[in-house]
Amino acid sequence: MSETFDAVDVIRTKRDRGALSDAQIDWVIDAYTRGSVAEEQMAALAMAILLNGMTRREIARWTDAMIRSGRRLDLTGLTRPTADKHSTGGVGDKITLPLTPLVASFGVAVPQLSGRGLGHTGGTLDKLESIPGWRAELTTAELRRQLDDVGAAICAAGDDLAPADKKLYALRDVTGTVESIPLIASSIMSKKIAEGTSALVLDVKVGSGAFMATRAEATELARTMVDLGTDAGVTTVALLTDMDTPLGRTVGNALEVREALEVLAGGGPTDVVDLTCALADEMLTAAGRDGHEVRAALSDGRAMDRWRAMITAQHGDPDAPLPTARVTHTITATERGVLQTLDARAVGVAAWRLGAGRARKEDAVHPAAGIELHAKPGDPVTVGAPLLTLHTDEPQRFERALAALDSAWRIGPDASTPRPLIIDRIA
Amino acid sequence: MSETFDAVDVIRTKRDRGALSDAQIDWVIDAYTRGSVAEEQMAALAMAILLNGMTRREIARWTDAMIRSGRRLDLTGLTRPTADKHSTGGVGDKITLPLTPLVASFGVAVPQLSGRGLGHTGGTLDKLESIPGWRAELTTAELRRQLDDVGAAICAAGDDLAPADKKLYALRDVTGTVESIPLIASSIMSKKIAEGTSALVLDVKVGSGAFMATRAEATELARTMVDLGTDAGVTTVALLTDMDTPLGRTVGNALEVREALEVLAGGGPTDVVDLTCALADEMLTAAGRDGHEVRAALSDGRAMDRWRAMITAQHGDPDAPLPTARVTHTITATERGVLQTLDARAVGVAAWRLGAGRARKEDAVHPAAGIELHAKPGDPVTVGAPLLTLHTDEPQRFERALAALDSAWRIGPDASTPRPLIIDRIA
Repeated sequence: MSETFDAVDVIRTKRDRGALSDAQIDWVIDAYTRGSVAEEQMAALAMAILLNGMTRREIARWTDAMIRSGRRLDLTGLTRPTADKHSTGGVGDKITLPLTPLVASFGVAVPQLSGRGLGHTGGTLDKLESIPGWRAELTTAELRRQLDDVGAAICAAGDDLAPADKKLYALRDVTGTVESIPLIASSIMSKKIAEGTSALVLDVKVGSGAFMATRAEATELARTMVDLGTDAGVTTVALLTDMDTPLGRTVGNALEVREALEVLAGGGPTDVVDLTCALADEMLTAAGRDGHEVRAALSDGRAMDRWRAMITAQHGDPDAPLPTARVTHTITATERGVLQTLDARAVGVAAWRLGAGRARKEDAVHPAAGIELHAKPGDPVTVGAPLLTLHTDEPQRFERALAALDSAWRIGPDASTPRPLIIDRIA
Repeated sequence: MSETFDAVDVIRTKRDRGALSDAQIDWVIDAYTRGSVAEEQMAALAMAILLNGMTRREIARWTDAMIRSGRRLDLTGLTRPTADKHSTGGVGDKITLPLTPLVASFGVAVPQLSGRGLGHTGGTLDKLESIPGWRAELTTAELRRQLDDVGAAICAAGDDLAPADKKLYALRDVTGTVESIPLIASSIMSKKIAEGTSALVLDVKVGSGAFMATRAEATELARTMVDLGTDAGVTTVALLTDMDTPLGRTVGNALEVREALEVLAGGGPTDVVDLTCALADEMLTAAGRDGHEVRAALSDGRAMDRWRAMITAQHGDPDAPLPTARVTHTITATERGVLQTLDARAVGVAAWRLGAGRARKEDAVHPAAGIELHAKPGDPVTVGAPLLTLHTDEPQRFERALAALDSAWRIGPDASTPRPLIIDRIA
C-alpha cells in the first residue's frame, strides 16, 4: 500500500454520508487485516456503512480489497468447466448436498467452499460432519485433485481465502452489523470470486427464515451480487426463493443428510427436488452445458454415484448409519383443517435450541438434533395428526424449543395460496 | 444489575431507531465498565447513537448510569457554596485560570476538575503544568481541604469519577464518534454532576474552532446539558460564546498562563476579561451570591491573591519564571487594511503542530510552544506590521505550522462587523 490514511478520517467520511475513495478502501481493508486498524474502529465503520450505505463502486472495490487480502484460487487448469452455488441461508436448506453431485454428474466441476452455521440457519459443513469419518478440510492441492477426479468437493474455505472477510464476518456477528446489503454482498462475493469458479448461481432467500425478510431487500441484495460477479468476470445469476416456511421436511444436520439421500435416490420432498433441479439447470447453463435432463440423473443413480465418490474422497463412509437422537417429542394438531403457515424462523430457532445449531463459533453442534415436519403449508390435517417431531439428545432442551414454536403455525378452513418456491430470477 | 441483556440486541435497538430502555442503558454502561461488553460492541453502539440520536430520557439515564459507574463526590459539608464552570473547548481558552480564583475571592468554592488537551483544543491542566512545581493530582481529602482553606482547586479528575465516561471518551476519540450531542452532553455532565458541585455554568463554544460549528448545534448541546444538570438538582446555566477566532492574544500553555496573569493583575485582552467577568457573574448568581462587583476583584488584587494561594497549595511557585521557547518566527502583513477574520481552528492546529498539543494521549506537550496574536479581527494593520509570532523549541515544526495558517486570515478595506463574544444565554 503506497498511501496511508487515518482510520478516524475514513470512519468520518462514511459517517457523514460521503463515498470512500478506492485508496481509502484499499488501505482500511489491508490495515484491518494486518491489525493496525482496530476492531472497534472497523465496528464503527461497519455501523456507518450499515446506516449510510455504499455506492456500487464502493461495494465493488470493498469486495476486491477483501479478495486481495488473501490468495485467489486458480482453477483454470481443470479439465472441466466450473460452477458453484451459494445460498444466503435458510431453514432446512440442504440443497447443496444433492445439487453438488448432481451438477458434477454432467461433467461440470463444483468447488463448493462452505461455512458452518451460526444462529438459526444451518451450515453445510455441519450437516456433512454427521457422516462418520467425513472431513471438511482439504488442502488446495487436494481440492484440485478431487475436482479433477470426482468433479465435486464440499469443503471448508482455507484461512488464506479472503482473510479480511473472515475477520469482518466474526466482528459483524457480535456488533449488530450483519444486516447490511453492501456488507453481506461483499462478504459472499469476495469468497466466491476468490475461490476461482467461472460460473455462480445465487439462491437468495426471502421470508421470515431468511436474512432478507422482504422481496425488495432480497432483490437489491441479488442485484448487488450479480453486478459484483459479472464485473469480476464470473457468469452470475440469482434466483429469489421462498423462505417463509422451511425447505423440505427436515431441519437439523443428520436429518437433512437423510433427506438429501432420498433426493439422490430419486425420491424426496417436491420442493427440495424442484429447487435442486432448477439450480442445477442454472449452473449447467452458466457453465455452458445445454440440453441436459437433470431429473433423469437423480432417478437413474448417476447423481448418487457421484455423491458416494465425493463423500469417500473426503474419508466419509456413505454406507455408515447416521446418528439418531436419544429422545423425540411429537406435536399433534388440536384442530382440523388445512395447515396455512409454518414459520421458518420459529422452526429454525427451535431446531437450534434442540442442539442443531451453535450460539458461539466455538460450540459443537449435535448431529442428531433437529425437527421433522409431518405437514407443510397446504396439507390437510386432522385432530391428533402429527405435525412436528422434535429430536434431541438432551430432553431438558424441549422446553425452550417448544417455546420457540409457540404460534409457529396456523390451521384454517381453507388452503391459503402459497407463494411460489421460485419467486424471481435476476441475471 | 438484576437484569441482563445481549449486547447485540441493545445495538440493534438503537441501530433500528428504537429507544433504549432504562434497564438496557443501565446494563450496557455497567457491562462496558466491567469489560463484558467489548470495545467493538460499544463502538458500534456509539456510531448508532451518533447517527440515530437519543431521546431526552435516554440521555438522562445514560448520564446517570455513567455517574453510577464510579463514586460521586460529596461536597455538601463545605463551609461555602460551590460553583463550577465547564467550557466545551476552544482555541486560546484560558478563562478557567483567572475565573477560578476570581470566583473564589467572593467566598464561593470552585472545584474545577479538568482534563488535558487532545487535538487542536488546549487542556487546562497542560497550561497549569507550565508553572514550575505545580501538581495536577489531588486526593479527594486534599481537594476538600483545599476548597475549605483556599476556596479554589483546579485538578485532575480521579479515576473513580465516572469511569465509564473515561473509557467511552477514549473509545470515541479513535472511532469517529466524538461529534454526537447526546454523547458530548452526557460525557460532560456525568463528570460535572459526579464532582458534586451545586451550581454549574457552561461555556458552549460556537464556530470554526469549536466542536459545534453552528449556532443551532451549540444551542441544542447547551439546552441538553442545562436539562441534564437541572434534572440532577444542579443549578445550571449556559452561555453560547464565539469561537470563530481565538480568545485573547495567546494560544499555547505558558503563553496562556502569562495572559491569565495579566488579567489577574487588572489588565489583559478585552475579550478574555469580558468573558471571565460574565462567567464569574453567572457562577456567583447560580451559587446564590448577588450584588458582587467582579471587575473590582481583578483590579484590586483579591483575585491574584487567591491565584497565588491556589497555585502554592498545589506545590507550584507563582513567582518562578515561565518557560520560553527556543525559537520564534513572526509573520507580518503584506497588505494594509483591517483584519477581518483570523480563523480559530487554523491557529489551534498551528499551535498544536508547534508542540502545544498532543496527537496521542501518551504524548507530552511543549509548555513554551504556541502562538501570539498581534492583531485581532477589527484591528487596522499596515504593510510589514506583525500579525502572528510562532513559538517552538523545534524549528523543524515551523513548516507544518505555517501550512496550517495558509489562508487563516483575511485583510480587507473595511471592518467586518464581528459576532458579539456572548451570543446567547440558556437557563
